[in-house]
Amino acid sequence: MTDRRVQGPVRIVGAGLLGVSIGLALRQKDVDVILHDSSPSTLTLAVDYGAGRRAQPGDEPDLIVVCVPPDVTAPVVAAELLAFPNALVTDVASVKLGPLTELVEMGADVSRYIGSHPMAGRERGGAASGRADIFVGRPWVIAGHDGITYRRANPVENLALDLGAVPIEMDAAEHDRSVALVSHVPQVVASLLAARLSGATDAAVSLAGAGLRDTTRIASSAPELWVQILGANAGAVAPILHALRDDLDGVIAALDAVDAPGSRRAIATALSAGNDGVARIPGKHGTAKRFAQLTILIDDRPGELARLLTEIGELGVNMEDLRLEHSPNAQIGLAEIAVLPEKEETLARELGARGWKIAGVSE
Amino acid sequence: MTDRRVQGPVRIVGAGLLGVSIGLALRQKDVDVILHDSSPSTLTLAVDYGAGRRAQPGDEPDLIVVCVPPDVTAPVVAAELLAFPNALVTDVASVKLGPLTELVEMGADVSRYIGSHPMAGRERGGAASGRADIFVGRPWVIAGHDGITYRRANPVENLALDLGAVPIEMDAAEHDRSVALVSHVPQVVASLLAARLSGATDAAVSLAGAGLRDTTRIASSAPELWVQILGANAGAVAPILHALRDDLDGVIAALDAVDAPGSRRAIATALSAGNDGVARIPGKHGTAKRFAQLTILIDDRPGELARLLTEIGELGVNMEDLRLEHSPNAQIGLAEIAVLPEKEETLARELGARGWKIAGVSE
Repeated sequence: MTDRRVQGPVRIVGAGLLGVSIGLALRQKDVDVILHDSSPSTLTLAVDYGAGRRAQPGDEPDLIVVCVPPDVTAPVVAAELLAFPNALVTDVASVKLGPLTELVEMGADVSRYIGSHPMAGRERGGAASGRADIFVGRPWVIAGHDGITYRRANPVENLALDLGAVPIEMDAAEHDRSVALVSHVPQVVASLLAARLSGATDAAVSLAGAGLRDTTRIASSAPELWVQILGANAGAVAPILHALRDDLDGVIAALDAVDAPGSRRAIATALSAGNDGVARIPGKHGTAKRFAQLTILIDDRPGELARLLTEIGELGVNMEDLRLEHSPNAQIGLAEIAVLPEKEETLARELGARGWKIAGVSE
Repeated sequence: MTDRRVQGPVRIVGAGLLGVSIGLALRQKDVDVILHDSSPSTLTLAVDYGAGRRAQPGDEPDLIVVCVPPDVTAPVVAAELLAFPNALVTDVASVKLGPLTELVEMGADVSRYIGSHPMAGRERGGAASGRADIFVGRPWVIAGHDGITYRRANPVENLALDLGAVPIEMDAAEHDRSVALVSHVPQVVASLLAARLSGATDAAVSLAGAGLRDTTRIASSAPELWVQILGANAGAVAPILHALRDDLDGVIAALDAVDAPGSRRAIATALSAGNDGVARIPGKHGTAKRFAQLTILIDDRPGELARLLTEIGELGVNMEDLRLEHSPNAQIGLAEIAVLPEKEETLARELGARGWKIAGVSE
């Protein structure tokens, strides 16, 4: 096949969700994929799924992708570097500085190692959950370092591109600081916030709206996985949490003495800083543009939302985002549609004329 | 008209978003709505919008709805109680204990006052943003107290029902504690988390995924409004933030000494408490049931999402929830569809057979 960049055999070590997904994607492009797993039954399952073949004596992989848990990544990478002295080795662990430092300390040949991190979600499950498409459109960090040349690292970028991912280069320390900020700290904060609900009355949680659901959604993540991630990236996560605690102390002090001079100003400053921060998050296609929101009532039965979206399409309006919200104890849903601000008025009018109930408009 | 519960004239004081929306909804049911606002131009606009008529000498409203900012709610309610000695008075402020306490201290006749709180979102904007439908399916808290009889308070429940809302009874203190937990504390936490992004590199925010967007979305709320709300409910918000800070201190201590005995267990405990808390939040129709998630790739052009949802409807599967995510720098979207776990496998297979790319499955 010609529409691929990866050429020679790729060896995948660890046949969990990521390893199997990478294998399936490469097999679709007819790449020779050699699978290995310390568990014979896991390996058999992955081969059965078509993610690759078993290793044979004399295999000479060009590229080795280590897909094992973060705490065993460095020793497995080191063993692969030794066993295959001509191969480039990468890994997919969600922290990057720890494994690199460990490898250097072990004296491993890091001129053939470059870490990477496909940010492809963390659906639970092993080989059986593997899918060739999970990398499409997702960022794939490639963590360059001084010990490897740009040219030598190229096969990892080819791998990311062949799998449909968006390669992003940053060094290991910057990667770890970045994911601490955009992923690990939000996980801790969401968990701490959700934990406050444990003692809530049923009446209190019946008032929960989209705000609470959004802010706590990721608090349902698996603790086993996140203890490993947070433990491995403690050095980057802790400083951000220290700074957040300082800000929190400021808000608490202001609320404890809410009528004292300066208290309301301190609260306003914290809220404004939040406005500034959220504006930094890129929206669709990397833009930070804000959209107008239209809230539309829909009957809660199959097909109603599709009918709404079909009509929006017929009106020639591109929907920039969509969220659904459900009403307590009612067979009704609320669809929040984000559109370009200049489209909002026409869309509200046209949908109203077609009989849709508009429950809110905001910019 | 017979399909209404509210009968006699309703006087609305304050012609902002909520006042105008209540007026529009009551006018649709042919209720006589008397509008008042301290600003003549705001009043004129609201009357022009059809939200009601101007007051006339001799008006005898049955029910008065005070829709002014929280910090002036109590004096306005007191003035209305004096001016209309036969009317029941309610308000729609988002805190309830403060106004009630103030009224009692003022010596107002609270046997004719009952506070309420329609939880109808906080879209910005005044009269021009008013819509008759914003209360449909939303909770509407009615904050009973010892000074008023159940029967006397009945017109407020009728108002909520006529507007399509779901009346929920709780006393003022319980209301304030509840909204602190499900709304005010999440607002503070989202703002503090988002504030950490202010100094982030572009590369770091380019890695932002749905988790960060969800946890920080409400941090874009208007500081002016929230300073008032948090200030008015400081007594209920502060204790929850104190408890959250204690938990945060525990996580920080564990991360600062991540290899010390017990540290990882402390982190796991915090994450598990988050699991327990998020499980308390009611989902669709008040159930806390968890759904299976299917992630499906969609081309980012008008009509594609509608086509997907139409096909899901054709397959007879009811979608329980839907979220859209956009890929960095790519003309592609990811639709996360929540369905009953027993529907997931069939749906994935059928959609795959119809050519849709499934990028992930999880329960």
